[in-house]
Amino acid sequence: MALMDRQITLAARPEGLPKESDFRLVESPIPEPGGGQFLVRTLYLSVDPYMRGRISDAPSYAEPVKLGEVMLGGAVGEVVKSNHPQFAPGEIVEGMFGWQEYALSDGKGVRKVDPKLAPVSTALYVLGMPGMTAYFGLLEIGKPQPGETVVVSGAAGAVGSLVGQIAKLKGCRVVGIAGSDQKIQHVVEELGFDGGINYKPPAQFHEKLREACPNGIDVYFDNVGGSVTDAVIGLINTRARLVICGQVSQYNLKRLERGPRWLWQLIIKQARAEGFLVYQFADRYEEGHRPMAQWLKEGKLKYRETILAGVENAPRAFIGMLQGENVGKMLVKVADL
Amino acid sequence: MALMDRQITLAARPEGLPKESDFRLVESPIPEPGGGQFLVRTLYLSVDPYMRGRISDAPSYAEPVKLGEVMLGGAVGEVVKSNHPQFAPGEIVEGMFGWQEYALSDGKGVRKVDPKLAPVSTALYVLGMPGMTAYFGLLEIGKPQPGETVVVSGAAGAVGSLVGQIAKLKGCRVVGIAGSDQKIQHVVEELGFDGGINYKPPAQFHEKLREACPNGIDVYFDNVGGSVTDAVIGLINTRARLVICGQVSQYNLKRLERGPRWLWQLIIKQARAEGFLVYQFADRYEEGHRPMAQWLKEGKLKYRETILAGVENAPRAFIGMLQGENVGKMLVKVADL
Repeated sequence: MALMDRQITLAARPEGLPKESDFRLVESPIPEPGGGQFLVRTLYLSVDPYMRGRISDAPSYAEPVKLGEVMLGGAVGEVVKSNHPQFAPGEIVEGMFGWQEYALSDGKGVRKVDPKLAPVSTALYVLGMPGMTAYFGLLEIGKPQPGETVVVSGAAGAVGSLVGQIAKLKGCRVVGIAGSDQKIQHVVEELGFDGGINYKPPAQFHEKLREACPNGIDVYFDNVGGSVTDAVIGLINTRARLVICGQVSQYNLKRLERGPRWLWQLIIKQARAEGFLVYQFADRYEEGHRPMAQWLKEGKLKYRETILAGVENAPRAFIGMLQGENVGKMLVKVADL
Repeated sequence: MALMDRQITLAARPEGLPKESDFRLVESPIPEPGGGQFLVRTLYLSVDPYMRGRISDAPSYAEPVKLGEVMLGGAVGEVVKSNHPQFAPGEIVEGMFGWQEYALSDGKGVRKVDPKLAPVSTALYVLGMPGMTAYFGLLEIGKPQPGETVVVSGAAGAVGSLVGQIAKLKGCRVVGIAGSDQKIQHVVEELGFDGGINYKPPAQFHEKLREACPNGIDVYFDNVGGSVTDAVIGLINTRARLVICGQVSQYNLKRLERGPRWLWQLIIKQARAEGFLVYQFADRYEEGHRPMAQWLKEGKLKYRETILAGVENAPRAFIGMLQGENVGKMLVKVADL
């Protein structure tokens, strides 16, 4: 066991797209767990779009990370020392342990992970926050019905690729939108989406989307926002449901973007746009884990991970994810099990 | 009884704000009812914001009025001749009779009006389409809870002035937005809203709205759209409901307006924007008429009408309503009962 804990702290509030220099690698002694605490050795770190909002000081749903603080984030790790009656050394756990090699925890918000069920990294993906985001966002807010057309933006990303597959399992016609031909090939050929459209170049995007959705759009699961979403809204059907999960096209803008006003479209289509945070379903995660684990086991849910190694690469992984460099889930592997 | 029926037809598709020359007054012989038909003598015509969309050939939820056709619209009238077993001369009826002094009907979509319950003009307002719009839009889509802050735009208009009063009856704090000090005075002093803000001049509007809503905004009932709605969205609370009923600021634009993108705000507030057309509640109108009639009888629901006389003035009434000249419901009185 190493003697020092390597951590990534927030060094500056990013303007626009974060830079590696907005973060700092620091070392500090590995802490000892106090009464009721346990020490976790990090195995995988997650980098996710929501983190962009949490390092900005614009008003949001939660306090931002302070300058000099360890960067927040979900991680999966192994309990290595424990003074907590419910967590024993050797157990695998998932929680908000932050971007660091070792973390202390009092067990609040920590979930045990069964390493026999699936690779432990899935606790950060299919069986973790992005998986629950896809599951509850699509099914509870989108309420897709068999035969309906579901469109998902950011289709090759962590959440989008699950949304499309769950919609297929529910009998829908699924069209994915992504930013490269390679990503489109992935969602159509590997994940089984019915169609996929590269939103670049923008000039042809609207027409291609119309051709890919001959029956209009009943459910839109939005990870991206901006002009991609504008095009979708022009094609929605009566009583369409727009599930607003993310707006990654907007997170790094230095000033608020303007776009066409379309609320009148919600009126004439009697349609609904609803934003959500996965935490609103926190008391129902078990209900979501069960079918997702079952589909994983049966091979009905495919997933890809893009993995960088070493805690020092967490900023690079995060910045790459914001630029859409990953297919599937972007993770940082910190240590071997 | 006159020998000729005076009608208003659509003469041209308006560009921007309609002009009186987009309509034409024509005369034709009063028709005779055929088998299963009856003849209605119009008493009051309604002019409503939705009609702007129905004379445009942009795609919408229904076919537009054709050039040369009698302008569509709700009206209340008296049955004067009948070959229909369920409608007898002397009965008062409400239906889509159009802008004309006499109309034939086969009874489809026609509702009998009890003139003892309230003045017959209320069949076009509190106990008609605008009343049902306010009632079901606010209660079924907005779902206001006692103590919540409800903001309504177009507050002195037909729908807005009812929405605010219903919200007060449900125990909410109500703030109205309108375009003149006289309208604000009306909704606060006569209708009992807790607050009111003139959105002109725009420079001070945002700050005044914030002051008028110290606990944020839980329900927004939108009749107007545009920059008024932008300001509201900056102040919504967690789990806010935005009821999108009308966008009158946008209806006469010659090109689509652009505005700040705010879908990210729906995410961080876990909020919902939902558009509706009153017709989706058509099978529940009875359920809405009962409490509205009761509140009227008890004096708990106040209403104002702005009435022009003569079918020839329907275009002027319509254009004035689109420009916000009316307080309460804009009507055209065509004949005495």
